[in-house]
Amino acid sequence: MRDFDESNITTAVLDRFDGTPDPRLKAVMQGLVRHLHAFVREVEPSFGEWRQAIEYLTRTGQMCSDVRQEFILLSDTLGVSMLVDAINHRQPAGATQTTVLGPFYVQDAPEVANGSDIAGGAEGEPLLVEGTVSAAGGGPLAGALVEVWHSDADGYYDVQKPEPDAHALRARLRTDAEGRFRFWSIMPRFYPIPDDGPVGEMLAATNRHPNRPAHVHFMISFPGYDTLVTHVFAADSPYLDSDAVFGVKTSLISHFARETPGTAPDGREMDRPWRRLNYDFGLKKTAVGTGARRVA
Amino acid sequence: MRDFDESNITTAVLDRFDGTPDPRLKAVMQGLVRHLHAFVREVEPSFGEWRQAIEYLTRTGQMCSDVRQEFILLSDTLGVSMLVDAINHRQPAGATQTTVLGPFYVQDAPEVANGSDIAGGAEGEPLLVEGTVSAAGGGPLAGALVEVWHSDADGYYDVQKPEPDAHALRARLRTDAEGRFRFWSIMPRFYPIPDDGPVGEMLAATNRHPNRPAHVHFMISFPGYDTLVTHVFAADSPYLDSDAVFGVKTSLISHFARETPGTAPDGREMDRPWRRLNYDFGLKKTAVGTGARRVA
Repeated sequence: MRDFDESNITTAVLDRFDGTPDPRLKAVMQGLVRHLHAFVREVEPSFGEWRQAIEYLTRTGQMCSDVRQEFILLSDTLGVSMLVDAINHRQPAGATQTTVLGPFYVQDAPEVANGSDIAGGAEGEPLLVEGTVSAAGGGPLAGALVEVWHSDADGYYDVQKPEPDAHALRARLRTDAEGRFRFWSIMPRFYPIPDDGPVGEMLAATNRHPNRPAHVHFMISFPGYDTLVTHVFAADSPYLDSDAVFGVKTSLISHFARETPGTAPDGREMDRPWRRLNYDFGLKKTAVGTGARRVA
Repeated sequence: MRDFDESNITTAVLDRFDGTPDPRLKAVMQGLVRHLHAFVREVEPSFGEWRQAIEYLTRTGQMCSDVRQEFILLSDTLGVSMLVDAINHRQPAGATQTTVLGPFYVQDAPEVANGSDIAGGAEGEPLLVEGTVSAAGGGPLAGALVEVWHSDADGYYDVQKPEPDAHALRARLRTDAEGRFRFWSIMPRFYPIPDDGPVGEMLAATNRHPNRPAHVHFMISFPGYDTLVTHVFAADSPYLDSDAVFGVKTSLISHFARETPGTAPDGREMDRPWRRLNYDFGLKKTAVGTGARRVA
């Protein structure tokens, strides 16, 4: 076949993928071609606009590093991450709702004992985080892996610092025999997603602010259950109604209670006001045959 | 607005772009969101597949360099480049048909005199390329800029060589008072597009071959006319019917005639067989107000 034009190019490209051995890959590639071509037919980009798009995607890839994932930011700010999340997490009663992973997750965070302080010396309002991990509609899960990470009092993550290898405000811990976990940290702050790259350009050009409300990230795993990726948002934070990445859900907003100086529940003596978050998580049993939907 | 789910996330993201000051950018972004979300709703990617896609796009950007444009290859192999080309070049009678730019164009190729040999010492069958540049349906254009580039006898471009700064098989020249141009080079060969990166992985996984039929690239510009981006394909090349980037058009296939040893038209003495291509190009007058469609 030759002489491709507007009338036949899409069919020609779809045909070219007919020999794809893996049926899932074939469906994904042919779906991509149909929707991508439909987009191009609708907006009719000029040659100059096409080159701008090529250059934009190139710069987005080149902005990525071990501690920066610009394509995740792009997916997040276009609402794609939350749509993928919604499709994959039709949650049963008692299971915690999910939200975006975000670009700041790190796989090798330090494992710490229950009750530890993970602030790593960061200055801020002390925060005690406590909660439980249970099976949705069932009993506590002992030994569940709780991974947490959050921003500092200025809105920055450890990996955005000049020494990105020094972990802070980030840890892995295990629930105890009653499914409980507890750690000390500091209050996170709302923050702009990194906006000095292609995603920031897009937000600026479209009059969108880059801010996310204050939150603590959780990733919780236990054998036989879907890994839970979520945040808990602070009820008194700005931007709850205009999160730049569309990640807020009402059930994930919680009061980070204001406590007065005195003795904390674990015996720690507090000489100034501190905050306290209590949140209980429910994990969804993995359906048989859907292992691909768990975090690899 | 909170609690985004499958039913309302797309509307929420579209609304977020309502404040975009530039109406064209607003239309492009909202069109992108609609088609991208429709794609995601159709294929329902797992979380693992979404991460694979993020990683694929990241590697595609990071494969790009001064001499490698992997996102153009991806656009080419998905037929997007030819669709954009078709939309932008509804050509009038007498205007040469267009095709993809490809990833090997270089802006600062050496300017040479008409009649020069641009082979730069590359070994191969000698090739004399001659032709004219005219206004479509009109007279010759004197002083038109003719930029040419093509592969060597092994199917490689100069920029794919270990010393990518040494230009060969690539030049800029000007038509004479009668709109004619002429240069010597060597026969190009069919070749695989660079397939050691993400695009090559995609082609391999979908049982697609990476080859393009033998061709010479032309970019021809003259004030007041749309810049012509095209190739001339060799009629005796393999892959004319399965070009990996969907770039072939019948009107762009030409015989690279086989000539016997003797005196060439410009007086050059040929002691072995050589090839000769004659192709006349027609440029389309730029429509008033569509300057954005010309190469910047």
